[in-house]
Amino acid sequence: MAQVRNKQVILKDYVSGFPKESDMEIVESTITLKLPEASNEVLLKNLYLSCDPYMRILMAKPEGTPNPRTYTPGSPLVGYGVSKVLESGHTDYKEGDLVWGFTKWEEYSLVSSAQILFKIEHTDFPLSYYTGILGMPGVTAYAGLFEVGSPKKGENVFVSAASGAVGQLVGQFAKLTGCYVVGSAGTKEKVDLLKNKFGFDGGFNYKEEPDLDAALKRHFPEGIDIYFENVGGKTLDAVLLNMRVHGRIPVCGMISQYNLAQQEGVQNLAHLIYKRIRMQGFMFSDFYHLYPKFLEFVLPHIREEKIVYVEDIAEGLENGPAAVVGLFSGRNVGKQVLVVARE
Amino acid sequence: MAQVRNKQVILKDYVSGFPKESDMEIVESTITLKLPEASNEVLLKNLYLSCDPYMRILMAKPEGTPNPRTYTPGSPLVGYGVSKVLESGHTDYKEGDLVWGFTKWEEYSLVSSAQILFKIEHTDFPLSYYTGILGMPGVTAYAGLFEVGSPKKGENVFVSAASGAVGQLVGQFAKLTGCYVVGSAGTKEKVDLLKNKFGFDGGFNYKEEPDLDAALKRHFPEGIDIYFENVGGKTLDAVLLNMRVHGRIPVCGMISQYNLAQQEGVQNLAHLIYKRIRMQGFMFSDFYHLYPKFLEFVLPHIREEKIVYVEDIAEGLENGPAAVVGLFSGRNVGKQVLVVARE
Repeated sequence: MAQVRNKQVILKDYVSGFPKESDMEIVESTITLKLPEASNEVLLKNLYLSCDPYMRILMAKPEGTPNPRTYTPGSPLVGYGVSKVLESGHTDYKEGDLVWGFTKWEEYSLVSSAQILFKIEHTDFPLSYYTGILGMPGVTAYAGLFEVGSPKKGENVFVSAASGAVGQLVGQFAKLTGCYVVGSAGTKEKVDLLKNKFGFDGGFNYKEEPDLDAALKRHFPEGIDIYFENVGGKTLDAVLLNMRVHGRIPVCGMISQYNLAQQEGVQNLAHLIYKRIRMQGFMFSDFYHLYPKFLEFVLPHIREEKIVYVEDIAEGLENGPAAVVGLFSGRNVGKQVLVVARE
Repeated sequence: MAQVRNKQVILKDYVSGFPKESDMEIVESTITLKLPEASNEVLLKNLYLSCDPYMRILMAKPEGTPNPRTYTPGSPLVGYGVSKVLESGHTDYKEGDLVWGFTKWEEYSLVSSAQILFKIEHTDFPLSYYTGILGMPGVTAYAGLFEVGSPKKGENVFVSAASGAVGQLVGQFAKLTGCYVVGSAGTKEKVDLLKNKFGFDGGFNYKEEPDLDAALKRHFPEGIDIYFENVGGKTLDAVLLNMRVHGRIPVCGMISQYNLAQQEGVQNLAHLIYKRIRMQGFMFSDFYHLYPKFLEFVLPHIREEKIVYVEDIAEGLENGPAAVVGLFSGRNVGKQVLVVARE
C-alpha cells in the first residue's frame, strides 16, 4: 500500500488577538492512500481550500459552551474545500467524483461522508469557484440577501467588506434586483473594483472616512433599506443612524470584531425600534436546501457574464497561514483561495 | 360661551439625563368649550393619560432629523389618553363618545380627528384599561410577542421590565401559549407579582444580581428562545450569551438607555450570527390594524380572569410630572396611569 507524503497546516495553539503566520505550522505527515477495511469513509485528494473569516472564531480558546467545530491545537485546520474522491466506502460517492464540503488543510483527507456537502456536477467553471461563487459564499450571499434581506426594486443597499467573497456577490445580486448599491472596502483598488468591475453605484474606502456617518449620508441621502453586515463595530453603529423605516440588516459576519479581546460596543441599537428594523443573523448551514435553486439562479448569470467573480489565489499549502492571516489585514483582493493541487 | 380653566402639564425645556419633576410645570390656561365655526376638529375632555417610557425620547432636544412628535418646550406633553367627546366637527365622532388615541396633557383638548385612534365600544372594563391592556401597551405586547416573536408551545421566554405595562401582558400571553416564562424587574415586590399574580414560572430582581449572565443561566439552563426586550444595555448583552439557535428578540423598548448621554455599548452582537437570531424593532403604530383581532383575543381572557392587569394610578394633572419621572426610577408598580377626571 502506497504511503505518501501528506503536508498539513496545523494550528499550533489557540489564537488570541490578530492571528499570525506563526500560530500555524506546516508539517509533513504520511498517509496510506487506501481506505481501511470495511470503512464507510471517503478518501479525498484536496484541490482548493477556502480561506474564510469565520475560521478565526474556531481558532480561539473556547469559553463557556464549547463549539464542536473549534480547532484542536496540533491538528490541521478544517474548512470548506474542493476535493477529488480517490476511494469511497460510501455509496453516494465513487472514485473520480469532484465534491465540495468540509475537509482538512492537508493534501489528502479521510473524511466521513457527512462532511461532503455536494457533488460537483457543473465543471465548465474554474473548480475554485466551488469555494466561492458556487460554494458557501455564493449561497451565503444569495440566502442572506434574498431570504433574509428581502430586497425590492429601487431599494437602497449598503454592503460592507464589499469586494470580499460574499460582498461582491451581494452587490451584484442586488443590482440584478434593481437596487441602488454602495459598498465599503479598505483600499482604493477595492473601491475601484466595486464601481468598475462589479457594477456598484458607489463605494468608499472606510479607512479614509473620518466620519462614517457622514460618508453614509453622502451616499445615502435618503437612507439605507438593507445593510448587508459583514464587519460589525463602528460601521454598524454608523449604519444604524442611517437606516430607513422597516429596514433589514442580514448579519453575515463581524470581521472587525473577531480579533478583539473586548468587542466594540454598539451604541445605536435603539434605532432598531425607531425605524422598526429587522436585524437577523444567519449561516450558510441553514440554507443547504437552497443550493439547487441557487445554482439555477446563478449559473446562467455567470455564463452570460452578467455576474463576475474575483478571486485571490494563493499557491500551495505552505502559503496557507499567510492567506488566512491576510484576511484580517484585508490583504486579499476578492475571494481568498488556496490551491493545494489543480487536479 | 363658557370659558373654563384648562390645567396643563408643560415641558419647560428639553431634557438631558434623567427627567426631573422640575423639567415640567403645571400651568392654568383657559379654553372655550365650543368648537370654532366650521371646524372639523374634535373637542375632548381628557379622563386618563398614559405615562410611557417612550415619552422621554420626545423630551430630548432633537439631533439630526427632527422627529415630528418631539415635544415643544412651552407646550403641553402629548401622549396616549382616554377622552370623552364634548363636541365634534367630524362625522366619525359625536358628543358623549368615549375614545382613545393621542391627546394633550391638559383637562380639555382640541384635536384633529386623526389623533383619535379608536372609539371605545366595550365599557364593562375600567376606562383606564384603554391606556393599558386595552390600549397601546396591550397591542404592543400582543403584536410584539405573536407577530414578531412567533412563540411556540414549550419555548423559553424571557421578559425584562416584566411587571410593567407591556411586560406583565407579554408574560401572561406567553403562558397562555404554553411557554416557560421568566421575567426580570427591579424590586422584590415586583418579582413577587410576576410569580404570584401574573403566573410567571420565575423571576429575578436584576438589581440584586451581580452577574446577569449567571442569573439567566440559572433560570434558563437550556437557553432562551424569545427575549422580549424592554430595557437594552447590560441585560441585552447578557441575554445574547444565553439565546438558543434561531431565537427571536422583539425589541419593544430600551428604557435603561433613554437617559444616558452616551449609550452603553452592546458587545455580544456576534451571537446574532452564531445562533442565527432575529432581532426586530417594532412599534404599536405598525399594528393599528390588529386592534379588532386583539380585542377578540383579549376581552374573553379578561372576562374569564385568565389575564389580570395591574395599574399604578396617580391622581390629578399636578401629579403628572412625578408619575412620568417615576417610570425611570421604577417607582411605579404596573402600568402608570394618570387620572385627569373619572367621567
